[in-house]
Amino acid sequence: MSKLLQILLPQEKKFFPLFEKASGNLYEIACLLHNMVKEDDVTKREKMILEIENLEHVGDNITHEIFNELKMTFITPFDREDIHELASALDDVVDFINGSAKRILLYKVDKMYISFIKLAELIENSAFELNKAISELRNLKNINKLREACIHVNSNENLADEIFENSIANLFNEEQNAIEIIKIKDILTLLETATDRCEDVANVIGTIIVKNS
Amino acid sequence: MSKLLQILLPQEKKFFPLFEKASGNLYEIACLLHNMVKEDDVTKREKMILEIENLEHVGDNITHEIFNELKMTFITPFDREDIHELASALDDVVDFINGSAKRILLYKVDKMYISFIKLAELIENSAFELNKAISELRNLKNINKLREACIHVNSNENLADEIFENSIANLFNEEQNAIEIIKIKDILTLLETATDRCEDVANVIGTIIVKNS
Amino acid sequence: MSKLLQILLPQEKKFFPLFEKASGNLYEIACLLHNMVKEDDVTKREKMILEIENLEHVGDNITHEIFNELKMTFITPFDREDIHELASALDDVVDFINGSAKRILLYKVDKMYISFIKLAELIENSAFELNKAISELRNLKNINKLREACIHVNSNENLADEIFENSIANLFNEEQNAIEIIKIKDILTLLETATDRCEDVANVIGTIIVKNS
Repeated sequence: MSKLLQILLPQEKKFFPLFEKASGNLYEIACLLHNMVKEDDVTKREKMILEIENLEHVGDNITHEIFNELKMTFITPFDREDIHELASALDDVVDFINGSAKRILLYKVDKMYISFIKLAELIENSAFELNKAISELRNLKNINKLREACIHVNSNENLADEIFENSIANLFNEEQNAIEIIKIKDILTLLETATDRCEDVANVIGTIIVKNS
Repeated sequence: MSKLLQILLPQEKKFFPLFEKASGNLYEIACLLHNMVKEDDVTKREKMILEIENLEHVGDNITHEIFNELKMTFITPFDREDIHELASALDDVVDFINGSAKRILLYKVDKMYISFIKLAELIENSAFELNKAISELRNLKNINKLREACIHVNSNENLADEIFENSIANLFNEEQNAIEIIKIKDILTLLETATDRCEDVANVIGTIIVKNS
Repeated sequence: MSKLLQILLPQEKKFFPLFEKASGNLYEIACLLHNMVKEDDVTKREKMILEIENLEHVGDNITHEIFNELKMTFITPFDREDIHELASALDDVVDFINGSAKRILLYKVDKMYISFIKLAELIENSAFELNKAISELRNLKNINKLREACIHVNSNENLADEIFENSIANLFNEEQNAIEIIKIKDILTLLETATDRCEDVANVIGTIIVKNS
């Protein structure tokens, strides 16, 4: 498309509020996850897990809204594939948060391990940074702030890797019950993958920065 | 490409019979899976698993045929990437069906759980709907029929999620043997993922509908 | 872009040395993995696993270099998405090699199974073929040599499938300890997936051959 055409046609700005809704919802679900694994009362925990499931549905709807908007919009503020990837990546984080929470319920895991709390804390922090970064996408004036948020998310992922590895090693050292190992290993893997998916979001944001600045 | 050029150049129609072959093969392998998990005779079951493996190879060949056609064809009836994705997505479903069947053989699982049958039934039904939808892609006259098929596949995936979660919860409640848990959990996960992959096919079809109607 | 413009603008050749660095590093890490699983001395093995981890970081840096180059380069020797996919696919193989090695350390697996050695041998051989193929991408004169390398990698993947299936069947037949099963199954799965990822690299190379010959 020529530069002239690009100036004449209004850029579709409706994607920004949708992405802010998606990342706001991600932050909310991440806070809930963190609070849930810190909660000692099993009944309260179960209620929080159901709330997490609800927010996952909310997230699904926002993702579909973005995809529908994308189908009907000719001019997008960023490359179409980046919009698609950003929405999918945000959706993936939410799915893994919900998946971790659901497993705690399905497996009837009563003891919340320290490693669950540490990983959930990192997920919450990454969600906070991503939410901040996404609100900066509108004007792309604070590129440095955006970059810092992405670096933060990447370093959280590295920390999560370490926590995951140590907790898996401890689990196999200390736990004799194979069924307990299956359960805890599954939950740790889902939590660690959530931090990987946060990094994926940060990487899409990185791509958008490079292309649009 | 200009509208004129699009009219002058013949659209390549050879993709339709190839996709119909692929989805026909998917339906056939899905029926076999369903019959296999319903079969009580272990020897007959093993024979059916080998047939499933054979059909997986047939599917592989169809997928390669589509990819080769795509490399040699300049004008395609749909966007190149959608053709690629549709072929890959169909291939993925077949792979997961074959993977589930093979695990039953490798793990020497003798007891066919009710949840296996329920999930295989949903996979068969989704394969039936996808096969129907793909035969409608040729003319795109029955958009509503196409959409209904996709909705059906999505709702099957939600049902499969529920069956999966309940059966995993039951498995950990009732089974004391960790090795049996490892085996059954693996097979359930593969079957459930097959329904996810059916939904991926439906989503590609959805994208094709939007772009071409 | 017009043919004239394509001739006037110099094609960016800096990608070739970067890809050769990436595939050279892959071959090195694959040789280390093979030597490590053949090593009887646990202390030496641990040292080698740390070396593998180091090479994984080296690989990460090369991948980022390719991505950065891609962002700043207007004319690329191959399609942008193929460069991106080739770099990601090479990175994935390295990740799975590192992942397998790390699990051996985390799980404190002392006994190196014959199947580990067989799979690591196939991974090394595939890495060798991929490294050879990638050095041929520069001029694309030896298309047949390139094709042969890709076929070799595909047949290695089929062999790996068989080894994986037999070793999983044996594991469940012979091992009574569920925790040992969890550990060995995980490592075998990671090793087998490394050969799948090698096949993915071969497939990207196949796509590049078709588009550029």
